[in-house]
Amino acid sequence: MENRISVITLLTDFGTQDYFVGAMKGVILSINPAANIVDISHDIPPQEIETAAFNLFCCYRDFPAGTIHVAVVDPGVGSDRKPIAISCARQFFVGPDNGIFSWVSDGEQQWQAFRLTNSNFFHQPVSHTFHGRDIFAPIAAALSKGTSINELGEPLDSIVRLESLEPRKIHEGLEGRVIHIDRFGNCITNFRFAHLSKDGATSWRLLVKGKEVSHFLEFFAQDQTEDIFGVFGSAGFLELVARNRSAAEILKVQRGERLVLAAAPLKPVQARLD
Amino acid sequence: MENRISVITLLTDFGTQDYFVGAMKGVILSINPAANIVDISHDIPPQEIETAAFNLFCCYRDFPAGTIHVAVVDPGVGSDRKPIAISCARQFFVGPDNGIFSWVSDGEQQWQAFRLTNSNFFHQPVSHTFHGRDIFAPIAAALSKGTSINELGEPLDSIVRLESLEPRKIHEGLEGRVIHIDRFGNCITNFRFAHLSKDGATSWRLLVKGKEVSHFLEFFAQDQTEDIFGVFGSAGFLELVARNRSAAEILKVQRGERLVLAAAPLKPVQARLD
Amino acid sequence: MENRISVITLLTDFGTQDYFVGAMKGVILSINPAANIVDISHDIPPQEIETAAFNLFCCYRDFPAGTIHVAVVDPGVGSDRKPIAISCARQFFVGPDNGIFSWVSDGEQQWQAFRLTNSNFFHQPVSHTFHGRDIFAPIAAALSKGTSINELGEPLDSIVRLESLEPRKIHEGLEGRVIHIDRFGNCITNFRFAHLSKDGATSWRLLVKGKEVSHFLEFFAQDQTEDIFGVFGSAGFLELVARNRSAAEILKVQRGERLVLAAAPLKPVQARLD
Repeated sequence: MENRISVITLLTDFGTQDYFVGAMKGVILSINPAANIVDISHDIPPQEIETAAFNLFCCYRDFPAGTIHVAVVDPGVGSDRKPIAISCARQFFVGPDNGIFSWVSDGEQQWQAFRLTNSNFFHQPVSHTFHGRDIFAPIAAALSKGTSINELGEPLDSIVRLESLEPRKIHEGLEGRVIHIDRFGNCITNFRFAHLSKDGATSWRLLVKGKEVSHFLEFFAQDQTEDIFGVFGSAGFLELVARNRSAAEILKVQRGERLVLAAAPLKPVQARLD
Repeated sequence: MENRISVITLLTDFGTQDYFVGAMKGVILSINPAANIVDISHDIPPQEIETAAFNLFCCYRDFPAGTIHVAVVDPGVGSDRKPIAISCARQFFVGPDNGIFSWVSDGEQQWQAFRLTNSNFFHQPVSHTFHGRDIFAPIAAALSKGTSINELGEPLDSIVRLESLEPRKIHEGLEGRVIHIDRFGNCITNFRFAHLSKDGATSWRLLVKGKEVSHFLEFFAQDQTEDIFGVFGSAGFLELVARNRSAAEILKVQRGERLVLAAAPLKPVQARLD
Repeated sequence: MENRISVITLLTDFGTQDYFVGAMKGVILSINPAANIVDISHDIPPQEIETAAFNLFCCYRDFPAGTIHVAVVDPGVGSDRKPIAISCARQFFVGPDNGIFSWVSDGEQQWQAFRLTNSNFFHQPVSHTFHGRDIFAPIAAALSKGTSINELGEPLDSIVRLESLEPRKIHEGLEGRVIHIDRFGNCITNFRFAHLSKDGATSWRLLVKGKEVSHFLEFFAQDQTEDIFGVFGSAGFLELVARNRSAAEILKVQRGERLVLAAAPLKPVQARLD
């Protein structure tokens, strides 16, 4: 039998100035010295569960089967929010039950969630304030050594859900929102290509704060102007982008900004969408 | 014999914009391709030896026996400050002799320190300005391959010490200080639970800049007010915390701020400490 | 045959708040679970190709033979800029053909470059905006598994070049520039020790914005004043430094600032260069 190397990813809002990430890695390696620990990010803005959920959603499919994703943005640590593990898409997800995994499981047909109650797998004593080290890291290490997820606790029928990534139908078309603003200031919306192609409309108006985005391009370097334009980004979502500048700054939008996407039969826009 | 995977941790103030960390990793992997390099942090504020010492102190016990911790916050690089390696708690510590390991060794009963003088183990030529790459990384790699610490240099009787983590007895009770401010603005003090339980007092006054902290809670999410409260954090120290806000900003304190902890028999405070 | 552990380094301007780095790591590990992924930096300022080129240049030699360096600062992603792989110095370099590898190959006698055209090795579907995930990561993973670089595409006669790291001869001596400003505010110039020793002159004037730097020291901690001084840094370049302060802030220089290095026979300066 192949000697599988277990990948454990870490995604947190712990930042990189403190010992938090080091402690989690130490706990994992003390249990499974062969674990391959991969940092996804520790720079999620503090307590932004949605930002963590989005980033995990955008990359989990790129990891191999058997990967264990530990995601800890956990403002409710120490309260009665549940610690959970989910089996989904031939991978595992370990963290607090606060919605952080809801977009991953929304997109998959089958998933099983468990409340982590078997304290034999915890790092003792369990602190009130650092379940990343004391619950989630050792649980991930146990999974990486082949422990069955069934042994970790009780099955759950449901998990906490964030607002869906699906846009909402409104009279003018679809109402969406900015779900993420990336390092470059690109504003990722929750509109996908399927939303634009569904009605057979060939041109679209995207309204942001009452202003219309009328350029849709295929890639960043294509644009020759300083205007805001739309492009389908690498995660499959429509992004509002400005060439070599921050679209978020130009548009003065923040995560959560509401957007309207409407077919524009009367005033066609030169749309080039691939 | 088991094929041990050696963990080498890195803790520096090198930041992550420059080639410094990459160079250290390259040197280590050139000597021991099987080394498992783990980043603890490279975002220690420049030249803050105490911050590095604190973060290492808070997580080294979580790592497996045999782990080699390389810590390089080194304003004295190139001067006559000694490069050292320490064997302590079944682990190794490699870096400059400027106090960075003093809290680790304070807490352990036995330790042996060596001045790194055997240049056979250095990366040549040794620069005047980057001992992280030229001395500490290759020494760690040598240790990870099984080189005895005795071969690396001369034994030392003492190492440089920072101000102790132990609070000082004063007339009113104990004088402590803020030893670290974390990413969330939590102010970690050097008071431990043992300090509060020692005298049999059941209520306490913690004075910060003349103001009194009167709430002590078990975990972050418990608090319902915007006040500052105290909580015993994951490293075992009393932390001053504000729910979803930066206590450091509210209190306007910096690392090093002096604090007084006094029993309060005359004016009892509802303290809930676990 | 030894079971070689392949090192794949990552150097990008993707930052660490988004899923970009995680996606690249996932793609690599899905193809080669045994790859040893090493972060050099993801905090290159957005689209600063020269900064990435400099940092890679300063550390690639520290890595073992066979290392695969993936460098992605790629403002031209999606345009007709070529994706390339280079074999050089017994290592591999994978990324966009925009100059990012030109200083590495400038310094080596032999190199072979290939345009990446064999889409069998790409991550499908290839997006227009994220070749780090869809082209460069899977190509690196293929190389790490032993795929010959010849299989990846067509050989190239030339690659895009940045302005040379070699200073320019002018009437007064040499004209150089600030090629990098590091985390500590040290200004790394493109003058090397050989430039100062070539003419037999024993003293030098370095002119920055019309002002003269007259102190040259061996290491940081040596200086007793607050003045700016020159020191040969760990990458072999003359650096302008201020003790425990940012020389860049004091001098008000940015990357690219032009400098003049002139022999000073008439007005000797106390130079102490090792």
